[in-house]
Amino acid sequence: MTGLTVALDAMGGDFGPHVTVPAAVQALLQYPELKIILYGDQSAITSQLSLLNQPSNPRITIIHSEQTIANDTRPSQALRRSQGTSMRMALDSVAEGNADACVSAGNTGALMALSRYTLKQLPGIERPALVTAIPTHSKHKTWLLDLGANVSCDADTLFQFAVMGSVLAEQCLASKPRVALLNIGEEEIKGNDLVKRCAEMLSSSPDIHYIGYIEGDQLYAGKADVIVCDGFVGNVSLKTSEGVANLFINSIKQAVTGNPIKRLVAKWLFRDLFVSLKQLNPDQYNGASLLGLRGIVVKSHGSADIPAFANAIGEAVHEIKRQIPTKISDRLEEVLLERPY
Amino acid sequence: MTGLTVALDAMGGDFGPHVTVPAAVQALLQYPELKIILYGDQSAITSQLSLLNQPSNPRITIIHSEQTIANDTRPSQALRRSQGTSMRMALDSVAEGNADACVSAGNTGALMALSRYTLKQLPGIERPALVTAIPTHSKHKTWLLDLGANVSCDADTLFQFAVMGSVLAEQCLASKPRVALLNIGEEEIKGNDLVKRCAEMLSSSPDIHYIGYIEGDQLYAGKADVIVCDGFVGNVSLKTSEGVANLFINSIKQAVTGNPIKRLVAKWLFRDLFVSLKQLNPDQYNGASLLGLRGIVVKSHGSADIPAFANAIGEAVHEIKRQIPTKISDRLEEVLLERPY
Repeated sequence: MTGLTVALDAMGGDFGPHVTVPAAVQALLQYPELKIILYGDQSAITSQLSLLNQPSNPRITIIHSEQTIANDTRPSQALRRSQGTSMRMALDSVAEGNADACVSAGNTGALMALSRYTLKQLPGIERPALVTAIPTHSKHKTWLLDLGANVSCDADTLFQFAVMGSVLAEQCLASKPRVALLNIGEEEIKGNDLVKRCAEMLSSSPDIHYIGYIEGDQLYAGKADVIVCDGFVGNVSLKTSEGVANLFINSIKQAVTGNPIKRLVAKWLFRDLFVSLKQLNPDQYNGASLLGLRGIVVKSHGSADIPAFANAIGEAVHEIKRQIPTKISDRLEEVLLERPY
Repeated sequence: MTGLTVALDAMGGDFGPHVTVPAAVQALLQYPELKIILYGDQSAITSQLSLLNQPSNPRITIIHSEQTIANDTRPSQALRRSQGTSMRMALDSVAEGNADACVSAGNTGALMALSRYTLKQLPGIERPALVTAIPTHSKHKTWLLDLGANVSCDADTLFQFAVMGSVLAEQCLASKPRVALLNIGEEEIKGNDLVKRCAEMLSSSPDIHYIGYIEGDQLYAGKADVIVCDGFVGNVSLKTSEGVANLFINSIKQAVTGNPIKRLVAKWLFRDLFVSLKQLNPDQYNGASLLGLRGIVVKSHGSADIPAFANAIGEAVHEIKRQIPTKISDRLEEVLLERPY
């Protein structure tokens, strides 16, 4: 591959170009083969680039868009009024082959709806899922899906999420990924009808290494490589984790703030601790992928700061290099053919 | 009140009498007016009491039971085969007025089913909810419900949870409790049909101070006094929090283990931190109440250790002193009469 191109929705997220443009410049430094197309308000973007002493970077293209999609726009409205918005134009560039991936920190519902409309799903997939890798006690990460793209799911959809998650994890693991369902108990009798029906489907699917139910307190224990749930539960669970992590990180920061000696002693004594705390920082794993589309779409946290948004761009780069949609498509056909339902 | 009596299901939980009996002795030291009836295997209980040098404590009564309810027993099975089990006998003692509250670390589904059968719901309540107080950034705690007693709810049930949570919080607050719905976004358009319908009901209910949606990352921010969700979401959310808290606590423990000097310096550096970590430790707030019954039932974590189970007994003592069921019953009638649906 001679180069790879990421299309950025520069207007998305809580801070728009103030975060997306510096993050783009940071990602370009990190990935020498990367090119970036910035979609958004030209003057806002160029003024950010000037501030960064990058008035004319040959690896950055700016394409002006007049419109943006607000955070409170309903997906159906977003679909009707998407022409000329930075999000739609960034997605179109992927659909038309001008970019290899799209990254946006904008409205999740709109991004989901527009991605389905512009890129279409892979054959056999009803609804794309939002997936991210979360840190664990063990050295491996765990992929969690769906994180909020689908607020209500049936057992079929959940089964497809399991297949997609398994195929994604397979690209990074030496062994067959262990797939679990997030539930409120480990015993077979626990849970609602949705998880019980999906458990039956997964148990009788020869191509999935289904290991059973997993509870919320085991999410970060590294016991499964892929954990599947509906988007409402996944979103609450991930955001709750972020809330708790921030509670701890703030407590630790407060404990050493305002006392340079304490800070120095803490850094010297607890180097390993700070490294592991950093790994638990939600910003470190910012960048959730919309899985199941005929193209790569990465969703950043709306409140992402510059390093966090740069991580989302990095996630897109990794997926381009691994050609995730093609791999999913290839394997999906086999798995779905073998499934007993 | 001359005294108060708690009935303990001594056989429930992962460790049975090894935890419940020492915790009972600890609680008796803490609450001089407390008496405890222990339901369970007499010889196992007496041998634990002997180990604790309490062979005949006049404030402890032992009532032998032959049977226990296993963790994998379905609620319907538990109902049919409950006669003579420690859980059923402890609940019966509350129903018959021999005890003021029941505490169990046993099977949640069975406890819910047996509590409804023996104690009955308060008028106007379809299903009891499991509620606990969680720590927050601010000085106030937040009540979260349902934590897993109801794996699927309709909007009516969720509304009743909001009313019960509000009445419970009212007993501890000077002002009207702020009630929020747990959702995957703060904007009105976000979420599934369940929360949207319940939001409408709460908005038009004059007796509830409804403040809107709250996301998982704000669960511990102290922005609401009562947060309402269905039992699946609440259980996953609470257990996920415990998982993340343990991840942090273990990282910190690892950093000081095996090095007494580091441990000393850490204590000096992070005194405030350890105090706040202790507050975040799930064991500190062990003891969730089954709200909406004509009696007090407290559910302990199955994996609770001695201090954690003693906290659950303490929770029962507080509820007896505050006469929570009577207060809920009194206020409930007013709220439900005024509700627009």
